Amino acid sequence: MSLPSSNLIAHARKASEPMANRETPFIYNEWYVAAFDDEVGRHLLARRLLGRRVVMYRTEAGEPVALEDRCAHRSFPLSRSHLQGDTIVCGYHGFRYDAAGDLIEVPSQKNCPRGIGVRRYPLVRQGPLLWIWLGEQALADPALIPHQAWIDDPAWACTSGYFHHPGNYVSLHENLMDLTHLSFLHANTIGTPDYASAPYKLDLKEGHYTLIREVVPTTLSPVWGKTTGLEGCASAARIATSEFLSPALHRVSVTFYDSAQPAEQRQQFHIRTAHILTPETANSLHYFIVHGRDFAQHDEALGDYMHEQLFAAFNEDVEGLGALEAALDDRDDHHYEISVASDAPAVATRMYLKKRADAERLHTSRKVG
Amino acid sequence: MSLPSSNLIAHARKASEPMANRETPFIYNEWYVAAFDDEVGRHLLARRLLGRRVVMYRTEAGEPVALEDRCAHRSFPLSRSHLQGDTIVCGYHGFRYDAAGDLIEVPSQKNCPRGIGVRRYPLVRQGPLLWIWLGEQALADPALIPHQAWIDDPAWACTSGYFHHPGNYVSLHENLMDLTHLSFLHANTIGTPDYASAPYKLDLKEGHYTLIREVVPTTLSPVWGKTTGLEGCASAARIATSEFLSPALHRVSVTFYDSAQPAEQRQQFHIRTAHILTPETANSLHYFIVHGRDFAQHDEALGDYMHEQLFAAFNEDVEGLGALEAALDDRDDHHYEISVASDAPAVATRMYLKKRADAERLHTSRKVG
Amino acid sequence: MSLPSSNLIAHARKASEPMANRETPFIYNEWYVAAFDDEVGRHLLARRLLGRRVVMYRTEAGEPVALEDRCAHRSFPLSRSHLQGDTIVCGYHGFRYDAAGDLIEVPSQKNCPRGIGVRRYPLVRQGPLLWIWLGEQALADPALIPHQAWIDDPAWACTSGYFHHPGNYVSLHENLMDLTHLSFLHANTIGTPDYASAPYKLDLKEGHYTLIREVVPTTLSPVWGKTTGLEGCASAARIATSEFLSPALHRVSVTFYDSAQPAEQRQQFHIRTAHILTPETANSLHYFIVHGRDFAQHDEALGDYMHEQLFAAFNEDVEGLGALEAALDDRDDHHYEISVASDAPAVATRMYLKKRADAERLHTSRKVG
Repeated sequence: MSLPSSNLIAHARKASEPMANRETPFIYNEWYVAAFDDEVGRHLLARRLLGRRVVMYRTEAGEPVALEDRCAHRSFPLSRSHLQGDTIVCGYHGFRYDAAGDLIEVPSQKNCPRGIGVRRYPLVRQGPLLWIWLGEQALADPALIPHQAWIDDPAWACTSGYFHHPGNYVSLHENLMDLTHLSFLHANTIGTPDYASAPYKLDLKEGHYTLIREVVPTTLSPVWGKTTGLEGCASAARIATSEFLSPALHRVSVTFYDSAQPAEQRQQFHIRTAHILTPETANSLHYFIVHGRDFAQHDEALGDYMHEQLFAAFNEDVEGLGALEAALDDRDDHHYEISVASDAPAVATRMYLKKRADAERLHTSRKVG
Repeated sequence: MSLPSSNLIAHARKASEPMANRETPFIYNEWYVAAFDDEVGRHLLARRLLGRRVVMYRTEAGEPVALEDRCAHRSFPLSRSHLQGDTIVCGYHGFRYDAAGDLIEVPSQKNCPRGIGVRRYPLVRQGPLLWIWLGEQALADPALIPHQAWIDDPAWACTSGYFHHPGNYVSLHENLMDLTHLSFLHANTIGTPDYASAPYKLDLKEGHYTLIREVVPTTLSPVWGKTTGLEGCASAARIATSEFLSPALHRVSVTFYDSAQPAEQRQQFHIRTAHILTPETANSLHYFIVHGRDFAQHDEALGDYMHEQLFAAFNEDVEGLGALEAALDDRDDHHYEISVASDAPAVATRMYLKKRADAERLHTSRKVG
Repeated sequence: MSLPSSNLIAHARKASEPMANRETPFIYNEWYVAAFDDEVGRHLLARRLLGRRVVMYRTEAGEPVALEDRCAHRSFPLSRSHLQGDTIVCGYHGFRYDAAGDLIEVPSQKNCPRGIGVRRYPLVRQGPLLWIWLGEQALADPALIPHQAWIDDPAWACTSGYFHHPGNYVSLHENLMDLTHLSFLHANTIGTPDYASAPYKLDLKEGHYTLIREVVPTTLSPVWGKTTGLEGCASAARIATSEFLSPALHRVSVTFYDSAQPAEQRQQFHIRTAHILTPETANSLHYFIVHGRDFAQHDEALGDYMHEQLFAAFNEDVEGLGALEAALDDRDDHHYEISVASDAPAVATRMYLKKRADAERLHTSRKVG
């Protein structure tokens, strides 16, 4: 083939237009995870979130605080400053801010000018996660946080990890909504060859996209076989539910059992993974992961093994999408992408992200106009 | 001097306008060397050529293949994928391509969509070189390859090498068309002081520019003196012919002999160097080199010595032109360049490259319009 | 605080408009320090100054020379060339330039074209400093050099140093005009807590901005306490005069004494620091420093200790302003800065730099127009 027909390319490009890609602006009016709760303490933690520089710390009473990471005076990073009680004293000229972000002291003068300060961003703890709202403050409703109670539930044994991911957040969402890649990108870790062609069901409610793939019968990859006792069982079942829950969160829930046993006698094993995506820049993101199981909760060695195996697989995503990002950097004028049937949930996700981003920009320009 | 007169600067700038420089677009309708033949085998080799990402491999039957290095689905690099028989299975979602670049399998569905694929680029072996055509496929005539039969001829003992060159391809062509630099850039390796001022003849046929420089009598630099037995001989002759053969190829042919001997009794020693230039990006290139001699063909130690000395000299070009490229990065509004008489073949070469690039863009826009 | 009021932000942005920042063009019609005198000798020294590539050397008679660092032929860096007597022979094709910058030899031809050359920049030695003029040559009056005779005066024992500073020159000038930062950025080195709130006097003559801060009584930081013998004295005085002398030079002069002693019996200790700023690029600069004292001139150990302590403090500026520069790289659409009373001299300095830059561009465009 030299090139697909110009008709096909034109069609492909038209199809891509309403889909978010790495050039799509961020969605600010949304809760994102800023940090694991235990990362934020009595020190100043700098992190770039959706392109914004944020500094985080905890007050003496233990309340987590997130402020714009620059002094209003000459933009010195507050994260290179000093935490004094609940206040930050700028490391350059000593301007002091309280935990609300208000400027309360200018050392070179007796009176502090009023009405000056830095943005404070709502920061809410839910279990081991700190959720931040970087958008319009009036819209910051904690009830909108896609709370994951199971993460904090003793019925679930959880481990967590973090990747500084060298790609954009759209492509990671898409990766998660199309798990046919398990048979290829993860061929040597969590995938099996039959995964990509297994039957699936979709539920594409706006903003909550669900894909259920039933791989039955199958043989489990070692990480699941060893930990469920189903290793070598040729009649294993692997029922995976992938859910886009918000621009910041994707959850994968998997059930394993032996399909050869009568339904009522089956022992079921459940795992869940919260894939938490917080864009850092247009082509990098903070990739937080919490993984849980509802079995062998107290078997630490098993938990360690599962964590190690699983994060090796997630690292394949990080490296693969990093390579993809580099390829996109070099794309030429002939670039286009084509989608197939199994892309439906990923395409729906990308169209939703684009729609949200567009709506937000429209809203902003209306307010300005 | 504070600055040359504004007249002189204006004149210099006008003179430079029709000459290619590093901003000139690439010439795509041309054969370039993509790789040494022995680099391409039963594995996936990624290389960027004229800004395009290309993946190369060999079929089981030994045919070399060059494809666009990205999956048509989500642009994953095919070079990070799996070679299976003669096909590539994308490392992300398993889309399979045959050696023609046609998509032949999508694992998640029974039927493969038709008419989809990635570009296959013509790739032709000639001796130890693989030539690629990245331009309009209809124009890809292998008869246009500037074939170098001598490279494969047992009368010539050849060695080869490669530099990842940190400069643009125009400045390397210019370097090769003005060998007066041997007396300076290569003063400590292959050059002698008399080289720059030796008499020369030109033959400037369009697209084939020839410069013949006769350095007679001279003393040869050690690399030639030691290997020809003319070391220390004050009546040595060094007749160098530099030829621009194509945007991808420059050949230097040199004859050495003792000019004190009668013409009919002279033993002549010939060397040739194919300087093979394949742009990678606007300011980097793949610099392949094949060097041959028609004497002492079986003296491996002599060949090794000659190779080592010569590539040390070529490395001076690579480092020097890298420094030049950095200087051009920093050039200011006052920048201009002036040419002298000995620049004639280099100027002709640059004008030809510019003309070719312009013609190609005109042709492309005509087709589009 | 979510954000200051839009009125306040609009006001702050309006206030910043006439102030130079890192986007403000350089001021060329000014003397800058190109190098310490002892850096320039019988070798070719490359340095980028105000974005221009400059090569420096000394003639056999000892005269310092500064030329444009590129050959007029093909822009090869003259700094990678050969110094031959008082001339530079280009390392590429051997074009030869005399110390005036005039092209005097082209090796490949008998006659050298006339009227060609590279810019020679006026370079004037004053004590240990070499001052360069990169602007309009007709305006290069050495009488305009802000000469610092004390640097060369045996009454002052001086040490000097250099930082390659990763920030723009405007922010370093501002840093020097607002020494309230001593109490914070230099809390562990040369600052004391009372510094920021000490009373000060201003003298804001156009182009010569002076700030005198009187910290009396105070306790001296160890570097001054130990070296003056006033260590631990609770009635010490520290009278600091900060002066913006030119876009290239800021001087800090400090007097220490024991304020408990009658005025006529006080032993006074003076130190001076020349902060010499030569922009390299828009966000980097050559930061030369000369520091002197008028006491214990022959106590080398004391001089070494003072130097070490002081340069550790200057390194805090370099690191802090580097972090500030990175923060400015990431600034978003909401960016603004607010000034307070003690910023008056810094604001005056920045307005002056902006005015000079604007005037110069206007002058240039008038000449062109």
